[in-house]
Amino acid sequence: MIPKLVVHSANQLLALASPDGPRRGQELRRLDIIEDGAVAIQGDRIVLVGDTREVLAEAGEDANIIDASGKVVMPGFVDPHTHVVFAGDRASEFEMRLQGASYMDILAAGGGIMNTVRATRAAGLDEIVAQSRQRLDRMLAHGSTTVEAKTGYGLDTENELKMLEAIRLLDEDHPVDLVPTFLGAHAIPAEYKGRVDDYVSLVVEEMMPVLAAKGYLDHDPTLFCDVFCEEGAFSVEQSRRILAKAKELGMRLKIHSDEFKALGGTALAVELGATSADHLACTPDEEIELLGNSDTIGVLLPGTPFGLAEDHYSPARKMIDMGVAVALATDLNPGTCYCESMPFIMALACRQMGMTPSEALVASTINAAHALGLGHEVGSLEVGKKADLLILDSPDYRHLAYRFGANLVQAVVKAGRMVSQ
Amino acid sequence: MIPKLVVHSANQLLALASPDGPRRGQELRRLDIIEDGAVAIQGDRIVLVGDTREVLAEAGEDANIIDASGKVVMPGFVDPHTHVVFAGDRASEFEMRLQGASYMDILAAGGGIMNTVRATRAAGLDEIVAQSRQRLDRMLAHGSTTVEAKTGYGLDTENELKMLEAIRLLDEDHPVDLVPTFLGAHAIPAEYKGRVDDYVSLVVEEMMPVLAAKGYLDHDPTLFCDVFCEEGAFSVEQSRRILAKAKELGMRLKIHSDEFKALGGTALAVELGATSADHLACTPDEEIELLGNSDTIGVLLPGTPFGLAEDHYSPARKMIDMGVAVALATDLNPGTCYCESMPFIMALACRQMGMTPSEALVASTINAAHALGLGHEVGSLEVGKKADLLILDSPDYRHLAYRFGANLVQAVVKAGRMVSQ
Repeated sequence: MIPKLVVHSANQLLALASPDGPRRGQELRRLDIIEDGAVAIQGDRIVLVGDTREVLAEAGEDANIIDASGKVVMPGFVDPHTHVVFAGDRASEFEMRLQGASYMDILAAGGGIMNTVRATRAAGLDEIVAQSRQRLDRMLAHGSTTVEAKTGYGLDTENELKMLEAIRLLDEDHPVDLVPTFLGAHAIPAEYKGRVDDYVSLVVEEMMPVLAAKGYLDHDPTLFCDVFCEEGAFSVEQSRRILAKAKELGMRLKIHSDEFKALGGTALAVELGATSADHLACTPDEEIELLGNSDTIGVLLPGTPFGLAEDHYSPARKMIDMGVAVALATDLNPGTCYCESMPFIMALACRQMGMTPSEALVASTINAAHALGLGHEVGSLEVGKKADLLILDSPDYRHLAYRFGANLVQAVVKAGRMVSQ
Repeated sequence: MIPKLVVHSANQLLALASPDGPRRGQELRRLDIIEDGAVAIQGDRIVLVGDTREVLAEAGEDANIIDASGKVVMPGFVDPHTHVVFAGDRASEFEMRLQGASYMDILAAGGGIMNTVRATRAAGLDEIVAQSRQRLDRMLAHGSTTVEAKTGYGLDTENELKMLEAIRLLDEDHPVDLVPTFLGAHAIPAEYKGRVDDYVSLVVEEMMPVLAAKGYLDHDPTLFCDVFCEEGAFSVEQSRRILAKAKELGMRLKIHSDEFKALGGTALAVELGATSADHLACTPDEEIELLGNSDTIGVLLPGTPFGLAEDHYSPARKMIDMGVAVALATDLNPGTCYCESMPFIMALACRQMGMTPSEALVASTINAAHALGLGHEVGSLEVGKKADLLILDSPDYRHLAYRFGANLVQAVVKAGRMVSQ
């Protein structure tokens, strides 16, 4: 096969080859940097990675040759936890909070997550797709080439299906690949106030069977199911009921656990073999240990405490020391963290959770791919993987975290095609 | 005069008219929003601001008409405290700090500010200009149309002059307007270790007279002089000697005061009638009161504690309550805060210093202009002012602070010309 696209002469080419699953411990710092490196692409796949001279020698005469001298070339970011699909915004609430309004004041003013549920229910499919596409454009410009996208602003069967349909349309239509997650158990809708178990029954007995009937579970790999296990949302027992049913239907599992209060959701994730447990701001040591000895990835979301101006960052250092395979994600959502940039999440992870730039980079690429069950397909520059790569306007990958607030991604190649420059 | 460029139909046009000097107290929240607003430009000046219908009626037939429906139109950001001109970077130090190295370890490894001094002394004028131009491009893309630029990485007569020359060349050559500040007293160079007073004599008796002789004080308005008044840098008495001499030569004054330790630099600024006192992280109440009763602007730099992952943010709420005219700036520099984005500084100011989005916006535009003595020329959309304006990819100015990590500036008009889109 003669390569059609070659990116060469990178000051640092970060291969991140990771054949044996997600990185843990010291391995989180190994970037496999090739100096004066190059990558060759045929169709949507990587066909060669190595020294510039060696790779250029294989290029076809009609190949598109891109000189990345003085730049970093790296895999596209994978963002494994987002609520990118929604309608409306909550700028007014943000201002109320700054002026001292409590969470209860905001709820009383019709605010919080129900604000976004109302806007998303009221919006047509086209409107939701149009608003979300703008966010995906911005995510792509900041280097994210694969992103997870959750439902959870519908909270009834019709509107949860509408959200899944929006995700499917965006995945078809937008260069960024979207990985869908069903989060019917994101919050208790107003009409089920005080009847949480009844809402859980709706999720388990109506929504999930409808998803199955509509073919949403037929893809390979299949749909993720997630639940917000938290005081004021769903208890461990309610979460277990939802996730056990999802597993029975063949879905893959995720959980929001230990964001504000530790209920035992992380142990549940390990017990059920979830692909990831996410947030983990106040996870007890016993459960960190369980996680470190499991195949479940720990997805950390430092943008959320930053967005809330709070101080409950995950203890990433301890988790890495205890063997957890950590990943990073934006948690992009309109309430607590309206952030489309994985590099900014790296900058936060280094400053607020004590991660090194190399650990933050591994957590944002190959480990993030594993958090979506896509470690074989994206997240590193290896022969046979999808040709998703970034050229940075910088000679040194550490600048992604050292600098902050501006975008260093100069060009994005998605599935072998230059999509943003 | 028939307008040649009209930007119309803005969802929110922020006029920020401020004829009576910088904003204080409640006035910091007044944005003078025009709904369905428009601005008309002739040459490099604003000639009309008002309702779309009224402004469009005056447009010439050959005018360039830009539809800003659903967008925000606002003045360009003014960034009144930057060290944008330097050579090299300090990514290695950043990584050392994350791995637990102390400031003393880093100094022992040849790091800290002297690292940048060595790189800047070693670089030719062209190289410094080329490296700094990339930062100015990024500042412009994030909406800064006027930025202050300090010397202070030369620390000898020849290299301080080289830095001033770099600033002059960039101002001529780049769309962003640069306002130069002489900061010969930024640090004590290695060759003067233990002889701080001798270095102050060099600044006062050699550098300043040379600046005067070379014509750097002949501009109107004239050059700023700044000093780093801090333990380990320059004492209040040394700062007084430098600033008093500068004043005698007709220079305008700034000071770095109370960043880590309160020495009395803010009182000195008020006493000498400085244009601004900057940092103010630990200013005692008596000096905040002096500042609130003076014409000296308080320039707050929340990017620096964020960059250092420290918690010494300025008490902006208290300062506003005590009548200080506050401005915001990036403090862009390679050691503590490599940040080119004023919107990100707004996002920090709201979350970490309790400012509202409206206060942060006023502090980043009209008050920032006053912190450079340019309140009559830039910082608001008023007839007669320079036509520096932004179109935001957002319907609501609050998104600048509510969202973070990505750039919402869609287009930049500088001196009447579209320069970034």
